Amino acid sequence: MCYLILLKTSLSQFLGAKHVQEEATSMDTISHATFETERCILGRLPHGKDLIRAIEDLCIENSIQTGVFFVIGAVISVTLGSYDQNQQVYVTFKKEEPLEIVNCTGNVSLKDGKVAVHAHAVLADMNGQTIGGHIFSETIVYAAEIYLRELLGKPLEREYDSITGLSLWKL
Amino acid sequence: MCYLILLKTSLSQFLGAKHVQEEATSMDTISHATFETERCILGRLPHGKDLIRAIEDLCIENSIQTGVFFVIGAVISVTLGSYDQNQQVYVTFKKEEPLEIVNCTGNVSLKDGKVAVHAHAVLADMNGQTIGGHIFSETIVYAAEIYLRELLGKPLEREYDSITGLSLWKL
Amino acid sequence: MCYLILLKTSLSQFLGAKHVQEEATSMDTISHATFETERCILGRLPHGKDLIRAIEDLCIENSIQTGVFFVIGAVISVTLGSYDQNQQVYVTFKKEEPLEIVNCTGNVSLKDGKVAVHAHAVLADMNGQTIGGHIFSETIVYAAEIYLRELLGKPLEREYDSITGLSLWKL
Repeated sequence: MCYLILLKTSLSQFLGAKHVQEEATSMDTISHATFETERCILGRLPHGKDLIRAIEDLCIENSIQTGVFFVIGAVISVTLGSYDQNQQVYVTFKKEEPLEIVNCTGNVSLKDGKVAVHAHAVLADMNGQTIGGHIFSETIVYAAEIYLRELLGKPLEREYDSITGLSLWKL
Repeated sequence: MCYLILLKTSLSQFLGAKHVQEEATSMDTISHATFETERCILGRLPHGKDLIRAIEDLCIENSIQTGVFFVIGAVISVTLGSYDQNQQVYVTFKKEEPLEIVNCTGNVSLKDGKVAVHAHAVLADMNGQTIGGHIFSETIVYAAEIYLRELLGKPLEREYDSITGLSLWKL
Repeated sequence: MCYLILLKTSLSQFLGAKHVQEEATSMDTISHATFETERCILGRLPHGKDLIRAIEDLCIENSIQTGVFFVIGAVISVTLGSYDQNQQVYVTFKKEEPLEIVNCTGNVSLKDGKVAVHAHAVLADMNGQTIGGHIFSETIVYAAEIYLRELLGKPLEREYDSITGLSLWKL
């Protein structure tokens, strides 16, 4: 069965049939691109530094333009936001207290030609109470561990989407 | 040390020793299977469509039978559920308000021969307050980004488990 | 552009320039190491067993020293903790009720030469209310699915960090 799957994929890519189909239904299905997996990095985030900036620096230092990452750890303070779908603006708030990073999930792509990190996170206080949302700077690391997966393929750019008002992937 | 690890693995697979051991201890340890990683996809979920259905369609379109995925983004509405371990039924509830998808983690396998998406998610409102659980349809996407990792191996089927009342992986 | 990226990386690795740069700025950037991806495992966690212990056993059984994993499922009871950054101790609490594992994110490395699992999780009750933090034993599995990605490279050891009081990666 695996042979059949590979054959079907190779054939449709060769004939360009899949690509035509994707464009025709791009409003209703998941627009997407396929990537090769490349470097896989485990890292320790710097104490006292900004989480988003540290991840951007890691990508720039290693010439990573596209990727996905996951972080667990703790912060000294966090700036979270939620997108107001009616006003089409992010509403942010800052918590200046120690919190666990229960999960931070994000990706790396390009915006205006520069590396752009998009990350969401769930955090927990000393009682296990959670808050979550889109992570902004300043979010100061106490200690944290990142798993970053580089993806290689056609550069993935963000562009303005008039329906949502967000910078979404051009796919 | 890496050589030793690889040798041990190859040898036990060759002799079939590991497989016998797994069966003998299957009640107490993690039953599992090893897969080859294949295509890696980044995608933009369609605005206004059902999240689970969109991911199922992506898998069907690309002939993906097994995989894991992660989503961040936002929804217009969500249907969440929690499994009542005593009654052995899912209890669901719907929230018709804009929410961030702080993290959605899921996998793809087969149930009754068809692609089945299993996904859990944490969502946050404008104040950063979080809710979470098993995601059901209807859950309507505002904007969302998926990282899908295809896995190749022996097809992974779900089957009824009499202890939990759930459809679990046949491993 | 991809060729340029690869060339830049290969060249800096060849010249050892990147490594020198990393050491010089190790306090401000993400200390990290690059790994080869190896086995990829999907597994069903054993009903009624301890989650952390089950993952450690899976790693030991398969000679996995380094990796990352993600779990979704449900628990019968959970022991969570949060790190008190002032006192530099973990404060733990136990919930003896059925909860969904909305997301559990973790990694595998070595501590004192033995496999050490570090995992955080968000859990949800029947109303979708969430709690989260660092997972400790005892955390008893009802049913759960793991995606474990083995990483091959120089063994990754934890060591005491005097600033945070935590066992962090030696990178």
